[in-house]
Amino acid sequence: MRKGLVTRARILDDAIRLASVEGIAGLTIGRLAERNGMSKAGLFAHFKSKEEVEVAVLEETIARFSETVFAPALAQPRGEPRLRALLERWWEWANDAERQPGGCLIVQASAELDDQPGRAREVVAKAQRLLLDMFERATQLAVESGHFRSDLDPKLFAVQILGILLATHQLQRLLRDPNAKAFMWRAVDDLFASAKPVRRRLTK
Amino acid sequence: MRKGLVTRARILDDAIRLASVEGIAGLTIGRLAERNGMSKAGLFAHFKSKEEVEVAVLEETIARFSETVFAPALAQPRGEPRLRALLERWWEWANDAERQPGGCLIVQASAELDDQPGRAREVVAKAQRLLLDMFERATQLAVESGHFRSDLDPKLFAVQILGILLATHQLQRLLRDPNAKAFMWRAVDDLFASAKPVRRRLTK
Repeated sequence: MRKGLVTRARILDDAIRLASVEGIAGLTIGRLAERNGMSKAGLFAHFKSKEEVEVAVLEETIARFSETVFAPALAQPRGEPRLRALLERWWEWANDAERQPGGCLIVQASAELDDQPGRAREVVAKAQRLLLDMFERATQLAVESGHFRSDLDPKLFAVQILGILLATHQLQRLLRDPNAKAFMWRAVDDLFASAKPVRRRLTK
Repeated sequence: MRKGLVTRARILDDAIRLASVEGIAGLTIGRLAERNGMSKAGLFAHFKSKEEVEVAVLEETIARFSETVFAPALAQPRGEPRLRALLERWWEWANDAERQPGGCLIVQASAELDDQPGRAREVVAKAQRLLLDMFERATQLAVESGHFRSDLDPKLFAVQILGILLATHQLQRLLRDPNAKAFMWRAVDDLFASAKPVRRRLTK
């Protein structure tokens, strides 16, 4: 029983690395069996179908995101410091060459699955809703803490942050732009400056 | 000869629709032959390899983008009006259910191919560089026209615009958010407002 769980976790680790580079489409039972030195039947003992692998890979990715991005940021003071911590953590997450050598799997899967109805698509959509909710909530707290102006729309602000992350990811992964991280922070600084209470902005 | 070109164009039309929904990975010779009522050998007469299909599909997409987004915007007055025309046209482009039923193929291919070395990846990277250059140049003209402040960095501004488009695309395609277009324009308005010359902003 315990051995089975360890094997399952090892297969998932490998599947996440593979999908991060080659996409969800690369997650075939045959390919995973080969990479893990198992027979197809052996792999079927852990996952009954390609869809089950896809869903498990995406759910595990969400759990890891919560652990490595969301939880540590919660330890930072609410408001702007926490938002910045989320972004710094996101950068580390999307550039973790060991666990996701092809960059953030959710960014990859979002583009790949957006027109492919099914359980995997629903999990990716859930992941992106969680991300937007996380930014919206952190922004709301920044408003309540007086870091941001009271007429800011946290929902729009969350979308604006998402845009910066997606552009950064593309600069980094597709264009291999050495300034990707610098662009990210300059865009964030611009966006946050526009969110400051007016009095604070004028006295700066 | 002419018939051959017509057939090739028809295959490409279909391949772009297919890739827009299922990704570049879906463009197998067998699949395209079947969809076009041809034998594999018949399809090989037009494209010698899967890679040749991929490159042709992406090059054709870039050519269409130039025609449907870039060229009409050039007819608008330089500066902010032209930038807004580019964005309006981009929205129509990314939501052309007839030609790209799964949304912008370049957005799809960017995430899919970013870790897959080869000619197709190079064409997608070229497409994204062209897009960023287009926004950068249009922004530069907006600065020169006095619409935007002179200390604006057009390169950063182009990345910020790209971010808004990528977030909009994800809201629309993955989350099926009915407010995607409204979010796009609100984010653009915010970004453009932050680029206005200071005097103009204060007198507004």
